[in-house]
Formats: sequence, C-alpha cells, structure tokens
Amino acid sequence: MPARYLLVVSNQIHLSHLRRALKLASTNARSGAGGPFGAVIATGVEIISEGTNRVTAEMDPTAHAEVCAIREACRRLSRFSLQGCTIYSSCEPCPMCLSAIYWARLDALYFAGSREDAAGAGFDDSLLYEQIPLAVGERKLPTVRLLQDEGKQAFQAWLKQPDRIPY
Amino acid sequence: MPARYLLVVSNQIHLSHLRRALKLASTNARSGAGGPFGAVIATGVEIISEGTNRVTAEMDPTAHAEVCAIREACRRLSRFSLQGCTIYSSCEPCPMCLSAIYWARLDALYFAGSREDAAGAGFDDSLLYEQIPLAVGERKLPTVRLLQDEGKQAFQAWLKQPDRIPY
Repeated sequence: MPARYLLVVSNQIHLSHLRRALKLASTNARSGAGGPFGAVIATGVEIISEGTNRVTAEMDPTAHAEVCAIREACRRLSRFSLQGCTIYSSCEPCPMCLSAIYWARLDALYFAGSREDAAGAGFDDSLLYEQIPLAVGERKLPTVRLLQDEGKQAFQAWLKQPDRIPY
Repeated sequence: MPARYLLVVSNQIHLSHLRRALKLASTNARSGAGGPFGAVIATGVEIISEGTNRVTAEMDPTAHAEVCAIREACRRLSRFSLQGCTIYSSCEPCPMCLSAIYWARLDALYFAGSREDAAGAGFDDSLLYEQIPLAVGERKLPTVRLLQDEGKQAFQAWLKQPDRIPY
C-alpha cells in the first residue's frame, strides 16, 4: 500500500481509539460512577485496556483514568513496561498521570480535551504544574527532610542485592 | 505540658514514623520484593498504612511506596481524602508520587533520602522534573491533540449531572 494510504489508515485507528476514550469519559460522567475522564491503551488496532476515573467510586485518589488503564494493561500483558503501546486519553493527563505514562514507558499519547477544559469543570491541576518544579522548601505542602544519612542505607542495600530487578 | 516539651514529643513521633519508612525500604530491597522505597501514613502517633515499592512484584509501574501507602490508607479510612494525615517517605517522592500526595490532600511530608541518592542507585526521576513543565509539543513523549471540540463534551455531561461528587 502506498505510504499515503497507510498514514490515513493509521490516523483512522488513532481517531477510533480516542473516540472510545471520549465515550468512556461521557458514560462515566453520566452514570455518576466518577469524574468525566476515560483512557484506552492500544497497540495498533488492538485495545489492551480501558480505564475510567474511579476516585470516588473506589475511594482512591490515584484512580485516574490513565492510571487505571496502565494498571490494567500491565496486568493483562503481565509486564511492568508498556513499550510498544500508545495511550489515548479523553483529556490532557495531569502531572501524576503524565509521570505514570513515562514510568510505564508508553510510546505515545493522544488526547482531546485540554487542561483548561478540565479546570472549567472543577478539575484544576494548575497547582501541580506550579508546585512540582519548585524547590522542596518553596512548596505549599509543608515538607521536612530528616535523617539524611540513614536515607542512603536502603539504596546501599539495593546495590548489594544480586537478585535486584532494575526498572 | 509546656510548648517546648510538646515540640520534642512531636519530633520524636516524626522521627519514629520516618525510621519505620526507612526500615520498610531496606527490608524491601534486601528481600528482593521490589525497589528500596518505603512509606508510612500516620495521624499523630497512629500509623494508618504502610507501603513499599511493588513495581516489579505486582507488575504495576504506578506501585511506588507512596502510592501504595495512599491507596491503603484510603481503603482503611474509607475516604478519598487524607486530610489530617502526614506521609513519611524513605526518599523524596518522584513527581508522580508528589502529585498523588497533593491529590490525596495530605497535610505534610517528611522524607530522608534525596532524589540524588535515588539517582545514584538507578532510580533517576530528573527526566520527569524536566518534562512536566514543558509545553506538550516540546516533550520527549510523542503527543498529539485531536478532536478538541469532542473533548469538551464529557465535561458538559459532568456539569449537568446532579449527583456528581466533586473532589
């Protein structure tokens, strides 16, 4: 097939997965199950996992759609790296989810709604974008560092452990 | 009791919880169960939950010690906010965990090891600190925004939902 057609087919796949993530978000919002967010993880046409926001349903503040989709994809594939997979999110991921996407080694991200759309509905993550780059002592979260020397010991134990699995 | 004594007692409590987090980190590293990280969530003297790094053990790239401790504390308290609680982490939390700490509304953070200590043992989160503040198009993670208008619909559905639980 000429490259142009392959590109069109590929775009159709991305649009289809992203529409699925948007559908999950709307259904979740309408059903009252949780916040208006959905995510899909796929490799090519194949959907590996789906996630919705389950913060209030599962009493878990980390249960954002992307995090739920990542956990489920790893469970299904029995691995902790999602290299080779792409995540489709109904909205721009918050810094927690973006970090999780990097830790999961996902290949790429497609999203639809913006962080401003989310803020307009009461889901404002601008505080996180402000806080993360700040030095520890400048953050709103009261933070104290203690036991600095003892803090090195677990890392020394790790480096001496011959069976360690780096990730 | 005079304020000076209360302060000494309070410091002892913080040191005790932080040492417990460090113990969890070392034990986890030595046992081969996962990375050298531990966390404790407490309110005053009472420990609500403990967490260790379970990324490789549970095949879950989001299972950092802090995230595990947050999930467990919420489960035990049956709520999605940890206001009134403090988290003690063996090491400075990565941006994913720091974000989770903000989303969980924890009151304060105590930690021992630094992000440089972690990097020296192969756990380098400097990429995340670099990437999060960047604009979407400037990040290493290939990112595409599509369906901008459809991206607003889930939020409209959410705002029309009378039973929604804001968080």
